[in-house]
Amino acid sequence: MGKVYIVGAGPGDPELVTVKGLRLIQNADVILHDRLVPKELLKTAKPGALVVDVGKSPGGVGPSQEEINKMLLSYAARYELVVRLHGGDPLVFGRGFEECRYLVERGVPCEFVPGITSGLAAPAKYFIPPVLRGVASSVALVTGREDPSKGVRQVDFKKLATAVDTIIIYMGASAAKEIAEELMAGGLPPDTPVAVIESAYFEGESFKTTTLGALSSVRNPAIIVVGKVVERGSRLRGASCR
Amino acid sequence: MGKVYIVGAGPGDPELVTVKGLRLIQNADVILHDRLVPKELLKTAKPGALVVDVGKSPGGVGPSQEEINKMLLSYAARYELVVRLHGGDPLVFGRGFEECRYLVERGVPCEFVPGITSGLAAPAKYFIPPVLRGVASSVALVTGREDPSKGVRQVDFKKLATAVDTIIIYMGASAAKEIAEELMAGGLPPDTPVAVIESAYFEGESFKTTTLGALSSVRNPAIIVVGKVVERGSRLRGASCR
Repeated sequence: MGKVYIVGAGPGDPELVTVKGLRLIQNADVILHDRLVPKELLKTAKPGALVVDVGKSPGGVGPSQEEINKMLLSYAARYELVVRLHGGDPLVFGRGFEECRYLVERGVPCEFVPGITSGLAAPAKYFIPPVLRGVASSVALVTGREDPSKGVRQVDFKKLATAVDTIIIYMGASAAKEIAEELMAGGLPPDTPVAVIESAYFEGESFKTTTLGALSSVRNPAIIVVGKVVERGSRLRGASCR
Repeated sequence: MGKVYIVGAGPGDPELVTVKGLRLIQNADVILHDRLVPKELLKTAKPGALVVDVGKSPGGVGPSQEEINKMLLSYAARYELVVRLHGGDPLVFGRGFEECRYLVERGVPCEFVPGITSGLAAPAKYFIPPVLRGVASSVALVTGREDPSKGVRQVDFKKLATAVDTIIIYMGASAAKEIAEELMAGGLPPDTPVAVIESAYFEGESFKTTTLGALSSVRNPAIIVVGKVVERGSRLRGASCR
């Protein structure tokens, strides 16, 4: 019986994987990877390693979570070192926990190897700090998705609006305008600074700043940052680019 | 004029630095580092590199932030590649932003290289996910510190209590009991699960789970995790250790 390492590949820059993550990728017998992981990392797999894309395309085609779980179990029965490679961090809006639970319940040992989550790395690339002394002492990482069983958003943005200083939204692109309205209904002023980072670290990357009141269409995948830190970051970035 | 890279060393495991972070450490002419960075990383500095400890001991002895800023500026004027190495991530409750601002205002180019923040890595080591489908769709990273100028806690824990599903508290050890009381006053039940990870990845590391109602003394440095995910993680960890 092998061991499964549930590894974060980081935000997309192949150099932002951890040293441990890279070592495991280089030594793995099998790698099951998401769509949004750097291709350069997969190229470092040892000769003969099985490299399997289990990612979903934007249209949603790809193996189901149950199928991925079964593949992990099946490979772990036949190979010593199996890597399940997630974009970002496997536990920050990934399914790493569910995969590990499935494996452990069936007697397969597993371990989490964290990765840099894109919600923190993408803003940092543009000089935006999630927290900043005197400006922001709390940051929430949240999903913009709805609960499919209930048809309502998973996060109560109205309540969240004034409970933390910075809000970083994953998977909020398609509902950006509605989320902005909920945040304003919750008490955030329309001129609250917002940064939108689309396709961070991947082809077609774009960065823009706006305000809650003016936030409209956002392309997937995106990280949306709401709060005063955006303005501080933009100012520093501007000074740095001069 | 050199360039200053403001680098996160990760939570303490020398293999949890990024590949980019390690490359910069190995090539740096000067490294200014916090106290809580892995010694193994510093040993990879090139021969002749200046390695300067600018960390504060628990008693608070060490250079002031202003002194560190000036050292960075002075080294950048004389050397090509300067690394400012922070424990965890330089922007998550570090002073990376302030350092970069100081440098940029004086014409020195700088860049952030993110690190794995201990608030996410330490729970992952014990199988605790910050968020989990169906259980938690939001997580707040917050400081437990008081605002020295106002004598009140920087974060309104009463308000935060029910606004997010998971709360991860940095630097909350000495005020753990008071914070727990504020969270309960804000509406969290006394049986809310809590995990305390002291000295994660360093000597004397300890992990325990408790509840908000029973939370008492915690030793510095610690990460405190509050929320249902703690119970899910503990269950998985228990199954994994059998």
